[in-house]
Amino acid sequence: MPADFQDMKIRPYKKDLPYSYTCGVFPTIELMDNCPSAVLRIILSEKIGKGGDLIRERAAKAGIPVVVDDKTIGRLSPKDNCFAIGVFTKYTCALDAIRNHIVLVNPSDMGNLGTIIRTLTAFGFQDLAIIRPCADPFDPRVLRASMGAAFRIRLSMYDTFEAYQKVCGDREFYPFMLNGTPMEELTFSKTERPYSLLFGNESSGLPDRFLQLGTPVRITHENTVDSLNLTIAAGIGIHWFTHRKENTQ
Amino acid sequence: MPADFQDMKIRPYKKDLPYSYTCGVFPTIELMDNCPSAVLRIILSEKIGKGGDLIRERAAKAGIPVVVDDKTIGRLSPKDNCFAIGVFTKYTCALDAIRNHIVLVNPSDMGNLGTIIRTLTAFGFQDLAIIRPCADPFDPRVLRASMGAAFRIRLSMYDTFEAYQKVCGDREFYPFMLNGTPMEELTFSKTERPYSLLFGNESSGLPDRFLQLGTPVRITHENTVDSLNLTIAAGIGIHWFTHRKENTQ
Repeated sequence: MPADFQDMKIRPYKKDLPYSYTCGVFPTIELMDNCPSAVLRIILSEKIGKGGDLIRERAAKAGIPVVVDDKTIGRLSPKDNCFAIGVFTKYTCALDAIRNHIVLVNPSDMGNLGTIIRTLTAFGFQDLAIIRPCADPFDPRVLRASMGAAFRIRLSMYDTFEAYQKVCGDREFYPFMLNGTPMEELTFSKTERPYSLLFGNESSGLPDRFLQLGTPVRITHENTVDSLNLTIAAGIGIHWFTHRKENTQ
Repeated sequence: MPADFQDMKIRPYKKDLPYSYTCGVFPTIELMDNCPSAVLRIILSEKIGKGGDLIRERAAKAGIPVVVDDKTIGRLSPKDNCFAIGVFTKYTCALDAIRNHIVLVNPSDMGNLGTIIRTLTAFGFQDLAIIRPCADPFDPRVLRASMGAAFRIRLSMYDTFEAYQKVCGDREFYPFMLNGTPMEELTFSKTERPYSLLFGNESSGLPDRFLQLGTPVRITHENTVDSLNLTIAAGIGIHWFTHRKENTQ
């Protein structure tokens, strides 16, 4: 990062830029509360109301510069109702190898990716692995769909699933596949290792080779629909695993 | 419906038109298979491949007129890859009062509505009540998001929840609300009456007065997010109720 980065002109987001930004008061506060050291600059609109006080207070405590600049906001935000932008450097986080993980293999839709991040956070997961090629998790559209939850997780991207396996520690794998075992019939024991729930691409699902990995599972549903929407399947799977039955035999 | 309706020019969809249409081979086949008597006309592109044979075969059996008309397809479909359109008259269906229902109170997003229709179909529900004001369930964008599942259900709209209550029969109500009982702790008995799962608007949820109705329930989640996305909440709730624990006391 060049020393004069604080003063550089912020350009509309592109995947190869070293920074990204939130749009809106709520995700900007999520960014400042959860990743303060990554924040480069806060840009506020003249029209901002009380949310501006909350942001200024946090910025003062963390030593983050704040500017009022409606012209830049207009250039960066596609929507008219954005009154706060938080610019931050992209970061990487090592996953916690003893926690449960969510693994998304080649997710392609930004809205889906953001919604899944919001969902996994809601059910207490904090670690997300994404296997490339994939939608860019730092794209402002993903951040918006996650409603700022993206700043509450450890997120790591890998070129291959095997690269993830090398660092993820000793664990159970549950690939979600149409020809897996009914998820609802599984029980677990309290001594089970940490687990990873794996979900494939929106159109193609997980490749067949994942049938050889761990315990492939499916969500039991009628054959009136081919498959569930990815975000729905992930939501149901994540919720079920956090409430599944203990094996009492 | 005027007698010359079969020949009339089909206009891009608007809410007050008496007809709507599918875009794409798969939803058009779903329409023909599930609601053949509502179909007015099939419009095919010259570029259609094998899907055209499947559609022509069904149309011949059901006596549905088929025309090849790329100009009309271009006018009706916002996307370039639409090769089949099924025009149908809007219909209403009485709900089955002895089956379980899904009730959406003021859903406002078309994509969400279509996704929820696809999800409820996947878990064996066939009856959907929608309380106005609401997104138009016949809008082609809803039909597309439902991937044709909209033609597999009985759908009925009501001006008020009370109007639905008058016709829904004797049943249990489970309104999904942030301050309800944890859904995961409920048990049920096999002699329970049919039930309705109720979900509110994307932004505002169900009004507080629904706390007085039946058994308000919530999906247990961390307070790291305010609430779940509506489609995710509906997916998790619908799946859970079709797999909940029986009361064996």
